[in-house]
This record gives sequence, C-alpha cells and structure tokens, in this order.
Amino acid sequence: MADAVTARTDDYSQWYLDVVREAKLADYSPVRGCMVIRPHGYALWEHMQDALDGMFKETGHENAYFPLFVPQSFLEREAEHVEGFAKEVALVTHSRLVEDEDEGGLVPDPESELGEPLVVRPTSETVIWNKYADWIQSYRDLPLLMNQWANVVRWEMRTRLFLRTTEFLWQEGHTAHATRKEAEEETRRMLEVYRTFAEEYMAMPVFAGVKTESERFPGAVNTYCIEALMQDGRALQAGTSHFLGQNFAKAFDCTFANQDNEEEYVWATSWGVSTRLVGGLIMTHSDDQGLVLPPKLAPTQVVIVPIYFDDDQQTDVMNRADDLLGELEDAGLRAELDARDTQRPGWKFAEHELQGVPVRLGLGPRDLENGTVELARRDQPGDKENVSQGGLADRVRATLEEMQQDLYDRAKAHREERTRTATSYDEFKKAVAEGGFVWAHWDGSEETEARIQEETKATIRLVPLPGETERQPGEDLLTGEPSEGRVLFARAY
Amino acid sequence: MADAVTARTDDYSQWYLDVVREAKLADYSPVRGCMVIRPHGYALWEHMQDALDGMFKETGHENAYFPLFVPQSFLEREAEHVEGFAKEVALVTHSRLVEDEDEGGLVPDPESELGEPLVVRPTSETVIWNKYADWIQSYRDLPLLMNQWANVVRWEMRTRLFLRTTEFLWQEGHTAHATRKEAEEETRRMLEVYRTFAEEYMAMPVFAGVKTESERFPGAVNTYCIEALMQDGRALQAGTSHFLGQNFAKAFDCTFANQDNEEEYVWATSWGVSTRLVGGLIMTHSDDQGLVLPPKLAPTQVVIVPIYFDDDQQTDVMNRADDLLGELEDAGLRAELDARDTQRPGWKFAEHELQGVPVRLGLGPRDLENGTVELARRDQPGDKENVSQGGLADRVRATLEEMQQDLYDRAKAHREERTRTATSYDEFKKAVAEGGFVWAHWDGSEETEARIQEETKATIRLVPLPGETERQPGEDLLTGEPSEGRVLFARAY
Repeated sequence: MADAVTARTDDYSQWYLDVVREAKLADYSPVRGCMVIRPHGYALWEHMQDALDGMFKETGHENAYFPLFVPQSFLEREAEHVEGFAKEVALVTHSRLVEDEDEGGLVPDPESELGEPLVVRPTSETVIWNKYADWIQSYRDLPLLMNQWANVVRWEMRTRLFLRTTEFLWQEGHTAHATRKEAEEETRRMLEVYRTFAEEYMAMPVFAGVKTESERFPGAVNTYCIEALMQDGRALQAGTSHFLGQNFAKAFDCTFANQDNEEEYVWATSWGVSTRLVGGLIMTHSDDQGLVLPPKLAPTQVVIVPIYFDDDQQTDVMNRADDLLGELEDAGLRAELDARDTQRPGWKFAEHELQGVPVRLGLGPRDLENGTVELARRDQPGDKENVSQGGLADRVRATLEEMQQDLYDRAKAHREERTRTATSYDEFKKAVAEGGFVWAHWDGSEETEARIQEETKATIRLVPLPGETERQPGEDLLTGEPSEGRVLFARAY
Repeated sequence: MADAVTARTDDYSQWYLDVVREAKLADYSPVRGCMVIRPHGYALWEHMQDALDGMFKETGHENAYFPLFVPQSFLEREAEHVEGFAKEVALVTHSRLVEDEDEGGLVPDPESELGEPLVVRPTSETVIWNKYADWIQSYRDLPLLMNQWANVVRWEMRTRLFLRTTEFLWQEGHTAHATRKEAEEETRRMLEVYRTFAEEYMAMPVFAGVKTESERFPGAVNTYCIEALMQDGRALQAGTSHFLGQNFAKAFDCTFANQDNEEEYVWATSWGVSTRLVGGLIMTHSDDQGLVLPPKLAPTQVVIVPIYFDDDQQTDVMNRADDLLGELEDAGLRAELDARDTQRPGWKFAEHELQGVPVRLGLGPRDLENGTVELARRDQPGDKENVSQGGLADRVRATLEEMQQDLYDRAKAHREERTRTATSYDEFKKAVAEGGFVWAHWDGSEETEARIQEETKATIRLVPLPGETERQPGEDLLTGEPSEGRVLFARAY
C-alpha cells in the first residue's frame, strides 16, 4: 500500500499529492480548481476549527455569518481592495436557466440578468463594513469583535489540493475599534493566537513578522504573518492578520461618536487562516509511509488492531480489545478499535500508517497470556515495544505527549538547519537555490525586491517584528544601498 | 424596550420581524434576499448544529465538504432535478472584472466568460453522486454515510429572515446503500433523528409523514418530512428526508459489484435541515416581550444581574455574584454575569427578556443579608421567587429542565387545540381559515390537491406514515371520490 506513495526525494510534489490521495484527505472535483474534502481531511479541519474557535472565544470574539455575495459596487469602494481582487472573482450574472429556443438545452435566461453582478466573496471586508456602519454609532458600541467560518472563492490559475484552490474554507475575523492603538494591539494579539496554534497544536514552528508593501493585503495598512518552512525548503504563509487603519470605515462611512461626542472613523482589523493549513501540516511532518499527524489534531489518536488466527482466539482478543478501548475512551483519548474482519492485521497496519494515526496498539493471543500489548508510534516506524495492559491509558497519553513535542522539536531542528544568513549576493543565490529561509539585508525598495524575485524566485516572507529580532543596519546585498536590518527570504508555496 | 415589539395579536408578521431585530438574531443585507446572521442568532444555530452533529455521528455519519459550484450539465443529468431548480439558480458566468473601455468602471471581462456556467449549489446531490461514482466499486464500499454543513443558494422571489432567504445555511446528508431496504431504513432513521431533535431540543412538537408527489423533492422517489404548527396557526416544514431510489446513481452511472459479483445501481438518500429552524423556534415559543428559548439551545441559560446603589454595595454584590457565577459554570450551566456598569438593572432585565435568556437571577444588597437570590423564569413573566444561594446550581438546573418540558407541553397543547378533523368541505374551509392543522379525506389526485390549494390556500402537509395513524378509508370532502385515509392540511410558511 505504501508503494502508492512516491518517495519524497524522488518527487516532492508527487509525494504530496500521493499522501493527500492515499490518506483520503481530499480529491479533485470536476469543477476547475475546487476540491472535495473527504471525511478524514474534514475531521482534521474540524479539530483545527475546534482549537482555533476556542482561542477566538477566549479572546472575546463571537461568531456571525455574512452573505456569500458581494455587490460589485461594494468591492469598488476601496481602491486597493478592488485592484487586488478584480482579476480573480467568480461573478454571478443571472438567476435562472431557460430552454434555448434555437439550440435546445438550457442557457442562462437573458431576462434574469442581474442589474449589478454579484461577486462570490473572495473575503468579506466590504459586506461586513457595510453592516458595521449600521451597527456602530457610539464608543459604547466598540470594540466589535466578530469572526466567521465560511467558504471563499478566488479564481486561481494554478491550483494544488489544500494549498491553493479556487474555493477554500477559512475563518475571517473582523474587528472594529475606537482607537488606532487598540486596533494595532488586536492585530498583534491575533497574530500571536495563530503563532500559538501553529506551534502548540500543529507542532509547526513559525516565524512571525510584517509583510512588505508588495505582499500586503489589498486595503490594509499593515499585514502581519506567520511563515513556516516545509520539508522541501519552501516557505508557507500560514496565517495573516491585517491592520486596516480607517480605510474600510472611510469607504463605508462608518463613524462613531467618541467620549467627547466628536465623530471619528472607526479603526479596523481582519485576520484569517484557511484549509491551506492542512497542506502545511502534511508537509511539516509526513514521511514516505504517508501521513504523520500531531496527536493534538489527529482525528483518531490511538487505534487497536486485534490479531487472531481462529474463532476462539477472535472472541478472547475482541473481548479484551473492547475493554481496553473503553479504558482509553474513558481517559478522554480519541481511540478506535479496528474490528473489520474483512481485512488482515498487516493490511490494517499499513492503512493506519498511511492515515497517520499517532499510536497503534497490536493485541494478539500471546499478549492476552502476557498481559501486554504491542505499541508502535507512527513517527518511529519499526520501533515497537511491548507494554503492560495495566495503566495503558496513562502510557498512551504520555506517548502522545512525547510525540507532540518530538514532532515540534524535529520540525524546529529542520528549520534551524535550513535557515541561513547570507553576507553576499552569491551566497544568497546559492542558499535560496538549496532551499530554506535566508536572512539578508534589503534596501527597502520595491524595485530591488522585484529584481531579487525575478533572479532567484525568492520573495521577502517577512520583516521581523520590532523587538523580536535585533535589527542591525547594513547594506543591501544586491544594490549596496543602506538597509535597516535583515529580512527573511525564501521561495514559497 | 419591549415597546419595540409589535403585539402578536396586532400583526404576527411584524411581531416576528421585530423579535428577530430586537433580539439581534439577524439583519437584512444589501444583497437581495440574503441575511446577516448576528452573533446571538449564530450562537443559537451553533447549539443546534452541536446537537444535530452529535446525533449524526452517533448514527454513523461522517462530515465532508463538496464544492460550492455545480457545473450546469450536472444539474441537467437528472430530469426532474433540473426541472425543480432551473428557475431559482444563481449562475456564475465570468471569472474576472475588467475596466470598461467605453463607459469606464468595471464590468465582467468578456474574455473570462466560462465555457459552461456554474450553478451556485441549491443542493449537492449532483456533485456528490459524481464523486460517489468514483469511490464506490464494490459492496464493501457501502454504505457510504456522509453529511456536510454548508451554505446553499436558491433565488427566492419573496424572502423572510430565517424562514426563506436566497442564501441559507444547512446540513445535507447524502448516503449510498447496497439495497433499497437499507436506503429506505436510512431515510426513516434520519426522519426520526429530526423528530427527536425538534421535540427534545427545540421543544417543538411535530407530525411526521410523507409528502404528496407535488411537494416531493425534485429527483426523489419519496420525501418524508416533519411539520410543526406555529403560534399563528400556520404550518412550518421543519426538515425533510428523501428516499432517492436509484435516480442519481443512474444519472451518474454509479454502480457496485454485489456479493455475487453482479453490477447494480446504488441506492440513495438525502436529508436536510436549515437555518429555517431558527424561525420555527421563534414562532413556537416567543411572546410579546421578545424571544423565548428552550434551555437546551439557549446560548446563555442563566444570567446574573447585580443590583447596587453605591460603591461599597457594588464591591460586595459583585464578589458574591462572581462566586455564584463560578458555581453555576462548574455545574456545567451556560451562565453569564452581566457586569456592565453603563446600564441599570431594569434596562438589563428588559434586554435579557428580549433576548430570551431562560433564567434570570437578580442579586442585591438585601439578598446578601438574606442569603437569597431573586429567580425569574423567562416564560413566566412577573412570577419571581426568592431562592436560597445554597444549592443554587441544582435549583437553576431543575428550573431549566422544568421550563424545557413546560415549553414542549404548552406547544403541544396549542397544536392539539388547533388540530381538527373536518367532515365536510365547508367545515374544512372554515377550519383552514381559522388556522391550524386539519385532517381531511383526499382522493389522491393532484387536480383535487391543486383545487383545494387554490380555493383555500391550504396544502397537504403530509400523508401519515404507515402504522403511525390508523388510516381509515373515506370520501374526499371536495369530490366525493374514494380516499385511502385522511391527510394533514394547513396553510404553511
């Protein structure tokens, strides 16, 4: 079964698609660029949602739901916003199908043409700020802290399952504040929520920083981001948090009376992560045997595979397996007993390996005699251990915690190994070509940024946060012009 | 504040809209027929989702996600299906906006016109059965039991918040089976899940039955439904479960090899409930003071309102209120302390009443002396009671359970009072005009059904399930033709 997965060293792209397919995470759909998220992939997304949703609610946000359709004129209200999205929007223009009198078959009914096309939301700032203008009158109505879980559509030319699809699932937070300071604090707070989620749940170390102007969200004053490093040395933008200033408040005339009863424009943020994170998770931990999942997000954390050679053995093994399953579940673990009698244990082992179940327990007749169970950890193939049935739940829990930490440590060691500082443009080009993050001086100009991208395919992933890294002045590697400090480059997904 | 709500006896429609607005459940959006679900309304939907999702998973279903867009040609594969939806579909025809060279401004780029229009899903049978045909080869792949939580779009001419909107949120289950019997059992099983949810969570009694052919889901062999009675005597279809036969399997060539290795078409079901249920909930329990919510679904089950007249009192009252809040939360109740010092207690009382918090606890200086708290139940306005602070959580829990049951009993009594059996067409017309359910004989013909609807605006809500009600033969009230048994009529939303 694992033969179905291409080795990473042979073809990393193909390996990725093989893992997505063989672990039954997602599938292409007949609709260009859209994917079908299969139950195993969706369960993973549900666990991500659960963790994030809890963090959003803890930081005072409420969920709401805004319409799928954005009137074209709304998108046009904020100049940079429409400029950024105009080339990749799905447009609804008709509301009815009718028999074609000449050719037969159905066609959009010309009489149902809409007066104004509707854009299938690529993001929801405009519909949301249109409502915020209704809801916000006074400083007492602020802050307004909302989030929505939704589907969005961006008409992408080149798509790849989870990483870049025409339709994707995401959450988008949209908040309104009385002061610039509060809005900036919110932007940074949500960036930290994303960092915490990436590192503590996904076991995926990230750098956090600010995007350059060319990579900024259309309509934002500043875009903050977290960036992770995939196994092949390419970077992945894993989440963004935008300080929107008063741009959308001005576009939708959203003002409030402050405590001195003066009208001011409202300050805004928005922030989002998407099903793209599933792709990041795969490319951070998985191996040539298939998916590897951090235990905190694994839909099934531990699976029991019963082993027997005749009916008597089956009865005894299954009885004991049922008891153990109960103990694991009572301990709050997401446990499963693979009771299918249509498949043999070896086949099941391979399947659970492909699907990334963190801990596998084999239970056979000899284990019944010895009071043991064979424990295998997904990220240590071949390294099996016989452990006692007594206190099994505690042992499994400890193993899951160790594995969660080990995955993080391993990913972090990989990132450190592949993060270099370049002191010349030649060194820079070599480092970029080898893959990985490269810290380098940059003169701050868009021209230089564009030229570096053209020559090396590397983009500036982020400028470090103030205080996060000591920023030492220097000289741009390409132009020799003054630089305020090093920024982080990489080729990216 | 309650003045903002029209009395039900004055104008039931306006009362409904007032409650939706004043309880901050939803709001109209600038996009024709689409609504914004505000945090309070969305929290209600989340609690409904939680309960339903648990029931779906208990019955073996897994969540997945299929694309928003349906190629027009897919919709056309099943003749009745396309016939049913062609007149109300949002059609995506272009993928880019471009500057209009003549007029200025942006227009859909003619060069981005799609080869085939995409339909924004009104329901997902077609995209799903297209994939099922890939995934199902043998009887070992069956049953396939999937559900998705999604938004759908049906271009409705007349809309009303929650009850009928162009875009709405729903879940749609889609299952595939090896035999007709299994698929029919699944259809009935999910109908029972809906009935249980409506009655036990929403405290909304329902009749369950089968739709007549004219009300059947386009493409179904049989549509089962649950029907509730609103306070104004109009019926509301609250959930449907469809037996689809082999119609979609044939349309998408989905066959499987049975145990004798013969190819057969797969049997199908689909079933769904939507945000329409929020409308049903409102019109089952709410009153002229605003929203009334069954405790099992209330986002906040109990709110503590502190009462104080000076700073010293404030400190003491707030300290005690904090302790009580902790006790209520520890007991697993969804409790809230309304600590806002910008509003007075009377204002808060009115707001929580409008928003339907089931139990309100008032805590003032005298309560501190007496070790009491003033408890008020939302559905018994004016009926307050001083209860001991000792054992408060148990007392609140008991009150919530009582209220849940009382709401159901009251709604059931209302339905029984307004469910009549007509023995003549005159009696029938009178009963329909007065509002409520009317059992009456029907000759089984579409013509008679249509004529009755034309003359009385009543539709056949359902034909009772076999065995559920003793079906006695009789004569159609209008035509005198033979009837196999009484069916349930009402004017409906």
